[in-house]
Amino acid sequence: MKDQVFIPDAQRSGRAEPMATREGKLKHVIESQQFTVPLLMELFDRSRGMERVVERGGTLDYQNRIMATLFYTPSTRTRLSFEAAMQRLGGRVVSTEHAREFSSEIEGENVEDTIHIVGSYSDVIVIRHHEEGGAKRAAQVSHVPVINAGDGDGGQHPTQALLDLYTIYRERPLDGLSVAIIGELDKGRTARSLAYLLAKFERVKICFVSPPELQMKPDILEYLEGHGVRYELEPDIDRIIGEVDVVYQTRIRPERVTGLRSPQQYAINSAVLRKMKPDALILHPLPRTVELDKSVDEDPRALYFRQAVNGLYVRMALLTMLLDKE
Amino acid sequence: MKDQVFIPDAQRSGRAEPMATREGKLKHVIESQQFTVPLLMELFDRSRGMERVVERGGTLDYQNRIMATLFYTPSTRTRLSFEAAMQRLGGRVVSTEHAREFSSEIEGENVEDTIHIVGSYSDVIVIRHHEEGGAKRAAQVSHVPVINAGDGDGGQHPTQALLDLYTIYRERPLDGLSVAIIGELDKGRTARSLAYLLAKFERVKICFVSPPELQMKPDILEYLEGHGVRYELEPDIDRIIGEVDVVYQTRIRPERVTGLRSPQQYAINSAVLRKMKPDALILHPLPRTVELDKSVDEDPRALYFRQAVNGLYVRMALLTMLLDKE
Amino acid sequence: MKDQVFIPDAQRSGRAEPMATREGKLKHVIESQQFTVPLLMELFDRSRGMERVVERGGTLDYQNRIMATLFYTPSTRTRLSFEAAMQRLGGRVVSTEHAREFSSEIEGENVEDTIHIVGSYSDVIVIRHHEEGGAKRAAQVSHVPVINAGDGDGGQHPTQALLDLYTIYRERPLDGLSVAIIGELDKGRTARSLAYLLAKFERVKICFVSPPELQMKPDILEYLEGHGVRYELEPDIDRIIGEVDVVYQTRIRPERVTGLRSPQQYAINSAVLRKMKPDALILHPLPRTVELDKSVDEDPRALYFRQAVNGLYVRMALLTMLLDKE
Repeated sequence: MKDQVFIPDAQRSGRAEPMATREGKLKHVIESQQFTVPLLMELFDRSRGMERVVERGGTLDYQNRIMATLFYTPSTRTRLSFEAAMQRLGGRVVSTEHAREFSSEIEGENVEDTIHIVGSYSDVIVIRHHEEGGAKRAAQVSHVPVINAGDGDGGQHPTQALLDLYTIYRERPLDGLSVAIIGELDKGRTARSLAYLLAKFERVKICFVSPPELQMKPDILEYLEGHGVRYELEPDIDRIIGEVDVVYQTRIRPERVTGLRSPQQYAINSAVLRKMKPDALILHPLPRTVELDKSVDEDPRALYFRQAVNGLYVRMALLTMLLDKE
Repeated sequence: MKDQVFIPDAQRSGRAEPMATREGKLKHVIESQQFTVPLLMELFDRSRGMERVVERGGTLDYQNRIMATLFYTPSTRTRLSFEAAMQRLGGRVVSTEHAREFSSEIEGENVEDTIHIVGSYSDVIVIRHHEEGGAKRAAQVSHVPVINAGDGDGGQHPTQALLDLYTIYRERPLDGLSVAIIGELDKGRTARSLAYLLAKFERVKICFVSPPELQMKPDILEYLEGHGVRYELEPDIDRIIGEVDVVYQTRIRPERVTGLRSPQQYAINSAVLRKMKPDALILHPLPRTVELDKSVDEDPRALYFRQAVNGLYVRMALLTMLLDKE
Repeated sequence: MKDQVFIPDAQRSGRAEPMATREGKLKHVIESQQFTVPLLMELFDRSRGMERVVERGGTLDYQNRIMATLFYTPSTRTRLSFEAAMQRLGGRVVSTEHAREFSSEIEGENVEDTIHIVGSYSDVIVIRHHEEGGAKRAAQVSHVPVINAGDGDGGQHPTQALLDLYTIYRERPLDGLSVAIIGELDKGRTARSLAYLLAKFERVKICFVSPPELQMKPDILEYLEGHGVRYELEPDIDRIIGEVDVVYQTRIRPERVTGLRSPQQYAINSAVLRKMKPDALILHPLPRTVELDKSVDEDPRALYFRQAVNGLYVRMALLTMLLDKE
């Protein structure tokens, strides 16, 4: 494991609004690279604990706390997952499904004022914003913790990456892992966030599988190089599918694949299943379309529905880390 | 009463996903014909109990349980009724008002995956789906109970029919009842669901009153014939209004009535009131338009606002039947 | 103080549905002029108490009560403020963000039936309606208390005015106050509601600052005259800004300002700040656009974010006044 010194990346960069307090307590969740390995381990320990809490029927420990979910663009599943997490903790929720359409008709309305106001009657804010950087701008003015539930097309979705990583972690050691990340990666918010997290661990190897025109953007590749993480860019799924420990599949919109290629070349189906390692793990952030065949659902290596359950635990754990007084 | 043997219709037909467990415990609520008379009587007993629970200010017995309301098309009143029912039980709610518009923009997105995911962080799912059969497809893959809150135009709305029947049951014996069901019945989801339920009882007579081109569809009529229920099709409200015990009025959209007829011919107003039995019951699922005049509201025979209150009790009772461990 | 006799204005006018019971208990909150000074003082005392309740982490005293928020047009901040208030009291919420779009597709659907139905499964209804008078119509048929959260363009928004007044009250005596109300006042729902409230107090002076074509409408001016309140109409902010105790700024949409004027002439910025009294109070109902510069935020006289917090306390207090049994 790397980054054993307990200073989040965000703080190193000297940003005005630190993502964690000086004592290392988590303050906001904005981008996955802010998590150090010790913070990840604390999160995963707490997530394990939450599995037991849910088994026992939840807790009422947070029944005086209010979470506000501000979704500027709708995402039913992510929003409901956060809201269920808060409710399993006994907490309360105030929510908007589609703030961008439903908010004030006045132009010039800004996210900063909204956060100021909503933060005055809630204890934590979960925000999905249509602009890259929207969540960070929110955190910079907020008096209460802010969680990024997805910002822009090319931004991040850190809690998705955290639950992805937790799902892998529950199955095998993270150090030494080889991971294929497949899809239209240039716009892959979850793929980007996961790559940042994987870079925290030792001897990880990432293979980005995508048509060349949709490959992972240079900022991530430079980050990996800077952190000494091995990666390769691969247009052909068949060349790597038999060698990786984890297959992280993401969507490919047919209209974005051009030329002689087709999305089917990147799909996981029963033929591809046969080439994979017998103990490989198959993840997908869902929703899916042609890139992940329904026939895969019955395969014991398929973990994507487990990811949804783990999302509940990880989000519960994050909320407790943000809400607990020192 | 018929159907004393405690096997729901759904199971008789050998459907893969039974609507009740072998022991008769209710598993999903998808269509009204799945309810046997004993199950109806259990539901109505519980509903009576819920009247007392609400009088005492609700209960907290279900405070660790989460209900997800997935409304693919909006229906504010039905949704709020379910959510209030869950809250009066002390339970929690996660909700979407308009999932069809707000869900993933990806084509190929399917209700089965959504149910799989939402079911991983909730204890019961209430679904309104724009396609006929949407709720049944949901139930077939769900690990938690599913309640149909309306599917498609020609589908069902079983909890509406259950609260309709409960409202009648609170006033008089169901065996031997004569009922007029009025409106544009070919697209009458609530009328269809109620007809299935009435067929469970002895010596019931149903009179379907509608312009011929909007009459009840053959599938229901065949079901009634198969179950030995007397019915008649009648285009003229005046010919039957003085003879029935229950008038179940539903909407008639003016644009659907053609030729020499007008929706006013099927309306209930003070003139029609004078022709009705002095102890008749007037029901309407609401919302209403021209077919039910406001002047009827003061008439003691008008029960449609009582139906709304009863809806709360019946939905509370259903939720307890689905959530209670054996 | 005036109006010491404990009879709300609403009752004096002999309206069928009184806004308070004969004993003076608050029954509905529809328009700000229904509040007498004693009722305002009770509200403000309770609001002070709510500050302490929130400090202690809220209460569970109202955990069996359900508030329905029916927003026919969306207003995320107002709705979330009410919902957080109810939750801080331990209460439950059922909610619709956009009932006008999401309610029944049937024409002729009326707010009265909806209120009847929703009132049968909730204990208090908060309504925002797109038509002036919508909330009053709701109150006239409702069996549970109704709160107006804004009706129409030229209607009222009484809870905003109550929190505005409370924010001033927390800083200084209301009798003898001089207040500038600035903006496009002909459509200023919050400005109108505040003017009604200020008229309850002694020796208040109001200066309405607006381009002449957007000035406050005659009905308010007549009300002020009838209650012996001094006011003036002023097109030039500079002529009065140095003399008032309170500056109540509201939005000015650029497209509504014509001729030689510009919205900037009515804006509060650092230049205007220098001319204001050193102990003036600056309020704004938010959201803002050009009429209130961000540079004002750091000024100790700026109270508009305090207003948001006070909104929580005032709404909590109102809810207890409506929900408490005698």
